[in-house]
Amino acid sequence: MTAFEELMAFQRETSALSQVAGRLGWDQETMMPSGAAAQRSEEMAALEAVLHARRSDERVGDWLETATTEDPVGQANLREIRRTYERATKLPAKLSAELARETSLAQGVWAQARADEDFDQFAPSLSRILALKQEQGAALADGQGSAYDALLVDYEPGTTAETIGAMFAELRAGLVVLREKVLGADVAAPELQGAFDEDMQMRVAERMAVAFGYDLDRGRIDRAVHPFSSGSGTDVRITTRTDARDPFNCLFSTIHEVGHATYEQGIDPQHALTKLGRGVSMGVHESQSRIYENQFARSRAFCGWLYGEMQQAFGALGVADADSFYAAVNRVAPGYIRTEADEVHYNLHIMMRFDLEQALVSGDLAVGDLPGAWNDRFAADFGVVVDKPSNGVLQDIHWSVGLFGYFPTYTLGNVYAGCLHQALRADLPDLDAELAAGQTGSATAWLRERVQRHGGLYEPIDLITRATGDAPSVQPLLQYLDQKFSALYRL
Amino acid sequence: MTAFEELMAFQRETSALSQVAGRLGWDQETMMPSGAAAQRSEEMAALEAVLHARRSDERVGDWLETATTEDPVGQANLREIRRTYERATKLPAKLSAELARETSLAQGVWAQARADEDFDQFAPSLSRILALKQEQGAALADGQGSAYDALLVDYEPGTTAETIGAMFAELRAGLVVLREKVLGADVAAPELQGAFDEDMQMRVAERMAVAFGYDLDRGRIDRAVHPFSSGSGTDVRITTRTDARDPFNCLFSTIHEVGHATYEQGIDPQHALTKLGRGVSMGVHESQSRIYENQFARSRAFCGWLYGEMQQAFGALGVADADSFYAAVNRVAPGYIRTEADEVHYNLHIMMRFDLEQALVSGDLAVGDLPGAWNDRFAADFGVVVDKPSNGVLQDIHWSVGLFGYFPTYTLGNVYAGCLHQALRADLPDLDAELAAGQTGSATAWLRERVQRHGGLYEPIDLITRATGDAPSVQPLLQYLDQKFSALYRL
Repeated sequence: MTAFEELMAFQRETSALSQVAGRLGWDQETMMPSGAAAQRSEEMAALEAVLHARRSDERVGDWLETATTEDPVGQANLREIRRTYERATKLPAKLSAELARETSLAQGVWAQARADEDFDQFAPSLSRILALKQEQGAALADGQGSAYDALLVDYEPGTTAETIGAMFAELRAGLVVLREKVLGADVAAPELQGAFDEDMQMRVAERMAVAFGYDLDRGRIDRAVHPFSSGSGTDVRITTRTDARDPFNCLFSTIHEVGHATYEQGIDPQHALTKLGRGVSMGVHESQSRIYENQFARSRAFCGWLYGEMQQAFGALGVADADSFYAAVNRVAPGYIRTEADEVHYNLHIMMRFDLEQALVSGDLAVGDLPGAWNDRFAADFGVVVDKPSNGVLQDIHWSVGLFGYFPTYTLGNVYAGCLHQALRADLPDLDAELAAGQTGSATAWLRERVQRHGGLYEPIDLITRATGDAPSVQPLLQYLDQKFSALYRL
Repeated sequence: MTAFEELMAFQRETSALSQVAGRLGWDQETMMPSGAAAQRSEEMAALEAVLHARRSDERVGDWLETATTEDPVGQANLREIRRTYERATKLPAKLSAELARETSLAQGVWAQARADEDFDQFAPSLSRILALKQEQGAALADGQGSAYDALLVDYEPGTTAETIGAMFAELRAGLVVLREKVLGADVAAPELQGAFDEDMQMRVAERMAVAFGYDLDRGRIDRAVHPFSSGSGTDVRITTRTDARDPFNCLFSTIHEVGHATYEQGIDPQHALTKLGRGVSMGVHESQSRIYENQFARSRAFCGWLYGEMQQAFGALGVADADSFYAAVNRVAPGYIRTEADEVHYNLHIMMRFDLEQALVSGDLAVGDLPGAWNDRFAADFGVVVDKPSNGVLQDIHWSVGLFGYFPTYTLGNVYAGCLHQALRADLPDLDAELAAGQTGSATAWLRERVQRHGGLYEPIDLITRATGDAPSVQPLLQYLDQKFSALYRL
């Protein structure tokens, strides 16, 4: 075997083991007996140790020195293997072990602090994690650029905080104007009334998932505390949750995860168990979940179909007609919680986190000053005073598990979804007629051809540019939002 | 760290990874999407390769050379680690890889041959597997004893085919006499009549499982094509199956697996994720499943309670009273299929497989002559002519997956269960009153104290001898069967 072939065979086993770790994580959230948690953490740690050793295995370095290929797919594989190897070898093993231990403990500390509404309980853990992340960022940056940029690249290769910051500034300006207009409008959006059997919610969610192209022969839907998608190749599973008072939670969470899962399911099988066999970045992944959830499932056309489905499933919904139903789905209201935010507010939640976490990593903001900084910014952006830490600085798990640089990928995903949606609508003028019949076939096919099948072959910005014919821009998203909410709120 | 400590830490990770492989196997049989099979086999192969490399890792050899401990538990750990290491280093990697590939393919070939009632389809696979197992046995024997004994030791350390053969000869003599008396008796055992809702079967099975001490905080029950128990420590799961016409299939399969699972759950937590943290052998494992299934759950006392439960669950059962119900549960009839056999016939099925597989491994019996040899022996032992291969030589999966030396452990388990039951009854004179109330607390506590908690600390024969005060013997099992079936069939 050539060095290239040996490297690819080794990587194939590593990818298979990584998929095993994903299956274990899925099991933990869905099937694992309650008493198995401590033992499971040892099982997961043993598997992670194997994966870590393989990622930084000296043989990989040797193979990379001599491996060559003329094939562009092979070259992209080499690029991604090299990225992972260089990252792994830059990090001292001791630092990775400390981060793993600290974040594993901090999750519980964060959950308790949130339950007790007491940031001070969490502050020491957060300080230790932040120090470790600063060290990690510096090691990864290796003198080239900022620590934050080095952390960001783990989730979104090919971009920097500066690029994202410029994009966000432009988006923010438009969103603030739109938000003020919507909140000033004299239109009261309706809310659903009724009882929503939770098993029936799961049945409707499954029908929607299949309508959106999710293949249940290569996936499954279960309930879990948090909705998520996991796995790759021929085994991509999603979870959702139900709430008897709020069926939208289940339905739109499901479609969101279906967006992630059909992306993974749509990757060309030639990339299976290679570095290209996963979605290319968190931002592109989020673009798929968001375009399914928002641009398709929250569209007027699809809501017409969904209104009929939900009436059949649950009886009267307490709204006058399909237009009212559509207005209820897209109700705009300022709220504390990011994950419950509407399309107008969502990205404002992200932008404040992006700014705050940059200040934390650079050292400009001390952990002790974080709650005050959070609350000031929230009041300024949302016009509401945070009433308690669980509605403010303690609401998200991310920092407790060491995810610094992850938040901006949510808004990048929305921006990419805007770009893709604009291009897709231009190519599919009859899409609304399809959506009105609960069909998404041509939209899914378009995304599969332009985005999903490539997996990790192209870098994110290159991928979006190839798919849409233009470099990513915030304007399509702003135009989509302006048009949608101007109509809904008669602006 | 000392060499002993380093070795134990390394083994702890290996055990954790082995538990991960178990979880993956469970997932495959219960949750995995149908389209994921090919990818899953790569995932499993990658994990098995990691485990294989760890078992034969040179560092283990080095540590074993210098590791010492005064602690008997530590010494037992060293004994078991050494056994696994020596086994792994005796086997050429090429042979193990060929066996893995051949048996993985042969399962499908066997299933197809069974469906087509055509042994010849399976014969070439079986011949290749047999040749590889002969080679493996010879490598493991390493000039000491027979290949078959070397294979047997994987499942039942501390015994030989000669010892087992002598035990079986004694058991066989008694069984043949009992069988002839029962079949000659003028008593027609009743059969249940009714419709048995399958979800209700699962609910009754779960109640029985909990009554038998199965801890659902550290396990779970799902449906699968084949009942099995898997996992160790704080995560031991079982599966069962349902058949609307035959509720006993579900109920007694469940209790059988509960016996395996409570054994694992009952092991002292100090042994968790060490070589002692699993049941010590297949025979001892089967002793736990069989004593739960037969001596307890098929007893007259427990059947009285179960009769009431089943009437509540399913309405009228088509039998006159609890005595008739007990007779239906313990109906004796010669049949082709091992897994459906009653207590009188079961071990006769095993003995013919034990003799046939020894002849195959030694070369005395050619694969081409196996169906004839099977059918002749079956006619001689059971007085019935085999009508088709799926009722004969193709009924069991074992040989297709390379399990030679495994079958005798089923009967060893029954023999051990007989010994344990005799000793336990002497210590617990009021057990029938408990069983009649659907309680098994004192019996489970006895087994936990004498057998289960020790895990792999004592070798099988030593363990049974300590638990019962006597070396294993077939007489307790024969006496139990004689007494039970003489009463039932008025002999």
